[in-house]
Amino acid sequence: MTDFLKQFSDDLLPTLEQEMQTVLQVNRQVKPDAFYGMMHYHMGWVDADLNPVMVKSGKRIRPLSCLLTCAAIGGNWQQAIPAAAAIELLHNFSLIHDDIEDAGLTRRGRDTVWKIWGIEQAINIGDAMFALAHLAMNRLIEHGVTADIVIQALRRFDETSIHLTQGQHADMDFETRNHVTVEEYVAMITGKTAVMLALCTELGALIAGAAPQIVQHYHQFGRSLGLAFQIIDDILGIWGDENLTGKSAATDILTKKKTFPVLYGLSQSRELQTLYANNEANDSFVINVVNLLDQYGAYDYARQTALTHSQNALSHLESAQPQGPHGEALFQLANTLLKRDY
Amino acid sequence: MTDFLKQFSDDLLPTLEQEMQTVLQVNRQVKPDAFYGMMHYHMGWVDADLNPVMVKSGKRIRPLSCLLTCAAIGGNWQQAIPAAAAIELLHNFSLIHDDIEDAGLTRRGRDTVWKIWGIEQAINIGDAMFALAHLAMNRLIEHGVTADIVIQALRRFDETSIHLTQGQHADMDFETRNHVTVEEYVAMITGKTAVMLALCTELGALIAGAAPQIVQHYHQFGRSLGLAFQIIDDILGIWGDENLTGKSAATDILTKKKTFPVLYGLSQSRELQTLYANNEANDSFVINVVNLLDQYGAYDYARQTALTHSQNALSHLESAQPQGPHGEALFQLANTLLKRDY
Repeated sequence: MTDFLKQFSDDLLPTLEQEMQTVLQVNRQVKPDAFYGMMHYHMGWVDADLNPVMVKSGKRIRPLSCLLTCAAIGGNWQQAIPAAAAIELLHNFSLIHDDIEDAGLTRRGRDTVWKIWGIEQAINIGDAMFALAHLAMNRLIEHGVTADIVIQALRRFDETSIHLTQGQHADMDFETRNHVTVEEYVAMITGKTAVMLALCTELGALIAGAAPQIVQHYHQFGRSLGLAFQIIDDILGIWGDENLTGKSAATDILTKKKTFPVLYGLSQSRELQTLYANNEANDSFVINVVNLLDQYGAYDYARQTALTHSQNALSHLESAQPQGPHGEALFQLANTLLKRDY
Repeated sequence: MTDFLKQFSDDLLPTLEQEMQTVLQVNRQVKPDAFYGMMHYHMGWVDADLNPVMVKSGKRIRPLSCLLTCAAIGGNWQQAIPAAAAIELLHNFSLIHDDIEDAGLTRRGRDTVWKIWGIEQAINIGDAMFALAHLAMNRLIEHGVTADIVIQALRRFDETSIHLTQGQHADMDFETRNHVTVEEYVAMITGKTAVMLALCTELGALIAGAAPQIVQHYHQFGRSLGLAFQIIDDILGIWGDENLTGKSAATDILTKKKTFPVLYGLSQSRELQTLYANNEANDSFVINVVNLLDQYGAYDYARQTALTHSQNALSHLESAQPQGPHGEALFQLANTLLKRDY
């Protein structure tokens, strides 16, 4: 990160955290009740006994892109803080439910909510956080955003939420199927990853009062950025340098995960289909699969697709004409996500 | 029901159903995809194979009370249709998740969503319906309601949703505990039942453009009505005429359900506590429990409490001064819910 991007991120993160804590009823003088306590635990503010802890938060790319967009249009990013908080809460609500649906035992190195308090309570607490994310959006009014814009932002917020659940539906459905097309996969990651980033930049633009055409460019920027990011992730999951990714190379092959390059390979090679259908995943399986993927151009195809989405993202960002240092920082943020070694 | 109330109900139900079907993307020419199909199944529009069926819907008391309130203030109830649809979808989202949390196998005589499609998909489909309920609210704009009122209505919608999840949290928590106070129970049913009815009447009043004081009276009317209704239900669960309730009398004792009269009895009688702690529920257990409840005044106390809430409800409704035949119908609706034989 450049100095300006880092400085901006350092400036806004405490404000964002404060906003989320206000919405989630944090009172530092009093231990939370069990209801809010489960949410505070998931956010990394308390431990499983509901005592205060400090857990390092993520990079908060989503709220960061929302606020940078707002500022790059000449808007006041402080005004967009409730939307940034709402997006982060929406993301975290979906993680609480995804962890149940995927039977995930740990998240960010800690037990998941359902693992500690059971599936029933975790479903309900996720629902509560979804409702609270909406209340966070509603606070835009108190920050001086007009009711018309808040209504429009809320509509996009919920349309995106539906798209998210469609992505999750497809993801779970794929687990039960042998045959998934590349197109179906792209539709799935559009729902699970891309529309969320599109929402971030779109809400930043809406709150800054941008013209519809500019809002659209920011939407497309976020969407293409999300698609490129996910496909790069998929490439790194097979051909990534384990020193950089922190996962052993080809992890996604060992788990037989249906990612972009694998689905492309399966669509091109009957030999690969047979290999996948008839073999357990072990070291020689991984070597054979990676060889076939290389042979049938899966790496090149994935790389080219990621590049196309990256170029689309940057081209929409250029068309949006972001201004000043925040505009520069948006390009830098995009490059941080796109220019990983693949 | 009187003729007018029945006529009004007959008039609005198709409009309401149409609105919900629009929000849930029903297209009668095409079979729904699996994603929307699960929601259509829950709503009783298709069977488990996603083919059209006709399932008798409930009495739709919630949307009915919303629309009657709007009309009794002189508002146009057609304008409030999106809010009525949103409330019914909110209710149904919570049923989909409650059925998972309570391990309920059937609802309205049909398999529950999770029973057919699994817990994972049912969680996700509930989330989708919650998001769609918000989009239903957003459609108030297209019905000419001002953005300011829609924002206010949405805030109350989400505050109520949080209250609902708090009630559900408490309900699940009670299952794990031996000792629950009457006050805790009342707080729980306030969340699970009363605030939902309060939301119905409050939104009807907000959309009609009523003054804050009138909105408050309608809120309190719905809230007290809900509390009275639930406590009457609890009384009927023990002393009800099985010919009228359709359940055998004292069902709630056989299942050791912690309802209002039982919790009051337990707070008054150590003998009852010992009986509950040490005995399996069988016929002689039921007889002994009911005797003790009678002896310690649980019936009288519950009846008196229900009466107080009923009087509060009607007194707030009178203060709100509902007008015309719709106002009359509101009193009749309240009496239908309150004047059951207990």
